[in-house]
Amino acid sequence: MSKTFTGKPTSRRAFLRGTAAAAAGAITAGAAKAETPDPLITEVQPWANGFGDGVDATPYGLPIEYESDVIRRNVEWLTADTISSINFTPIHALDGTITPQGCAFERHHSGAIELSKQDYRLMINGMVDTPLIFTYADLERFPRENHVYFCECAANTGMEWAGAQLNGAQFTHGMIHNMEYTGVPLRTLLEEAGYDTAGKWIYVEGADASSNGRSIPMEKALDDVLVAFKANGEALRKEHGYPVRLVVPGWEGNMWIKWLRRIEVMEGPVESREETSKYTDTLADGISRKWTWAMDAKSVVTSPSPQSPITHGKGPLVITGLAWSGRGAIKRVDVSKDGGKTWETARLAKPGEKMALTRFYLDTEWDGEEMLLQSRAMDETGYVQPTKTQLREVRGENSIYHNNCIQTWWVRPNGEAENVEVS
Amino acid sequence: MSKTFTGKPTSRRAFLRGTAAAAAGAITAGAAKAETPDPLITEVQPWANGFGDGVDATPYGLPIEYESDVIRRNVEWLTADTISSINFTPIHALDGTITPQGCAFERHHSGAIELSKQDYRLMINGMVDTPLIFTYADLERFPRENHVYFCECAANTGMEWAGAQLNGAQFTHGMIHNMEYTGVPLRTLLEEAGYDTAGKWIYVEGADASSNGRSIPMEKALDDVLVAFKANGEALRKEHGYPVRLVVPGWEGNMWIKWLRRIEVMEGPVESREETSKYTDTLADGISRKWTWAMDAKSVVTSPSPQSPITHGKGPLVITGLAWSGRGAIKRVDVSKDGGKTWETARLAKPGEKMALTRFYLDTEWDGEEMLLQSRAMDETGYVQPTKTQLREVRGENSIYHNNCIQTWWVRPNGEAENVEVS
Repeated sequence: MSKTFTGKPTSRRAFLRGTAAAAAGAITAGAAKAETPDPLITEVQPWANGFGDGVDATPYGLPIEYESDVIRRNVEWLTADTISSINFTPIHALDGTITPQGCAFERHHSGAIELSKQDYRLMINGMVDTPLIFTYADLERFPRENHVYFCECAANTGMEWAGAQLNGAQFTHGMIHNMEYTGVPLRTLLEEAGYDTAGKWIYVEGADASSNGRSIPMEKALDDVLVAFKANGEALRKEHGYPVRLVVPGWEGNMWIKWLRRIEVMEGPVESREETSKYTDTLADGISRKWTWAMDAKSVVTSPSPQSPITHGKGPLVITGLAWSGRGAIKRVDVSKDGGKTWETARLAKPGEKMALTRFYLDTEWDGEEMLLQSRAMDETGYVQPTKTQLREVRGENSIYHNNCIQTWWVRPNGEAENVEVS
Repeated sequence: MSKTFTGKPTSRRAFLRGTAAAAAGAITAGAAKAETPDPLITEVQPWANGFGDGVDATPYGLPIEYESDVIRRNVEWLTADTISSINFTPIHALDGTITPQGCAFERHHSGAIELSKQDYRLMINGMVDTPLIFTYADLERFPRENHVYFCECAANTGMEWAGAQLNGAQFTHGMIHNMEYTGVPLRTLLEEAGYDTAGKWIYVEGADASSNGRSIPMEKALDDVLVAFKANGEALRKEHGYPVRLVVPGWEGNMWIKWLRRIEVMEGPVESREETSKYTDTLADGISRKWTWAMDAKSVVTSPSPQSPITHGKGPLVITGLAWSGRGAIKRVDVSKDGGKTWETARLAKPGEKMALTRFYLDTEWDGEEMLLQSRAMDETGYVQPTKTQLREVRGENSIYHNNCIQTWWVRPNGEAENVEVS
């Protein structure tokens, strides 16, 4: 089904010249006259012959109408009700690393609530010297930090355990976003309350009806957890926990409590519904793994992919995707065109940063033949993203959460791509 | 009018304890019962007793209604018509460094036009081996880069030459935004066309009626200029040049051609309207400076500020703001509370990055007395942001563009702030 990649692109100059010579019409220097005249060049177009919108046209700017398909999407059959469901980031259509809030995935357990700053309270209680209640204005008086972190739902790629289920990177890998958070270190607030060092855990819950309570080891709470009130510079969206959410870098999104209302310092974990019957991984023998908080290294090719086919035929092709690890920075990403037989090392747009999305590119030449496209991430701990076969050997096929296996897209000669499984 | 700052905050622990002891009501541990019961804590609130919105409620997420004042704003009297005008980023209400596209300032010369990817063409002509026309799809086939850069209008702070004119950081300093761009290095496209090394300049223009043509030295064009099609991961907003704009790192925003349609390689500059009668700086003797492309180091306190007063009375206070330089990375920012008599070095949220906004914080204690708040940026070249007096000595008062002087906010004991001038 697949071809082994053997050809190497020729020199950069020749490679690029190849692109434009094929794709762009050469015009006569100085005369701006193409052999096949392009009216978009030779004729004055309406947008150059009149006025556009004024600066008061949009108080808050929205994407242009042509991009109306670049939105979060839910999958109706996945859950019984949209108030306890998921929608997916359109990662197939994005580039760079920042996810705009407007298209950043959501997962609600009892719907997105509307909570004003005036009505917001955060309580810290339990094993502390002084139980405290903070208003939103109180939080703004503590020293703040800024960090870019990814937030990935533990169930991201969860439908793929049994085989190739969902056709598109948005649906297989879109329960993830990556934003610049501003907030107060949780450590600061715990110190303010005077936490008892015998308190080895905290229990955190939200103000929505689900409360979505989770236990977090004190060691993590004191390390890098943020009580955040801004994402990408502005207030959190309502759907992301306005006015305050917890940011738990590298750990599963379910712990990033939205509409954060209470933090209790405790001796042990609560063993709540969300960390026992949910968010655990049942192995082949029926035993469930729990406390599987960190998201292991993972990657996916976002283009080409089923929702982002190749439309330009053979020749120069940019293969791009995202890689991330909940255990540190991404060090390397490899790309295969033949289902994992041979690999090429991709170019990272920037050196990987801890617990943040890394964009990779493979600038290559497509021979027009079918490809079995894969990507494989490696993080700073030395961990290598496993194949689906390797993951199943350890974890069986009962799991929903923590599927970080290598994804395969079958790209056909017509440029269309499909979610497939290779063995 | 001002007090010299002498007191230092006590230890971090005591300083923070001071905050919450004063601002947060202590509650009885375990019983969640305050001495003055807070119904937001003691009573079940409606948002915890019902469902919120489902994940299909907003295809593209928008800010919550409570944040409806965090928008770009124009100033009606500033220009004759909104199609050739400016609106301002609400920097007083933002934190971190990324500017969301939805509230990123705009400047149009003949309005924001609507141009589809299908109708998009980019021509490179003039002193090149092969004049070329690129479609949008062609551009996507070249190797891409990602960079965070600020874009500042040369006229930012321009109204302040004569004195304190506009009351609010949004209006004095809001002609700036900072986004993660994805695009193709212009160098790549110029190499593709085979530029003549005798061509020392390029002339760039947009597809709108104004065309907004500008000359750029070839040295800069080959250095770090990007032909960008994404900002913060997604397509450019229509108002920011969808589908393609030029990104000219560190240089005045007028050169960041939107709806980029043509690049001509030339021997010399065009001396267009936009670089002669506009975007030059007339000195006291009537002679105008031209080719003043790079934006000098600058900073502003965004909070507290006229649109972001202190509402919590004396005690712990976070003073925050933004600093940037078109000549490299910000190395240090100092803050003064007494109109420049004494200075404290602020904390940078992250080490400064070249041609990108840097967020600074001064975690301090307010004595409740009036302050004359200032910030002063230093960049990696050793340049120090000047006072208004220093700037006027060199540049006079005729200028509109390139006002990078130190800004002063007079904060009164009631916490309200005002734009003032100190001598």
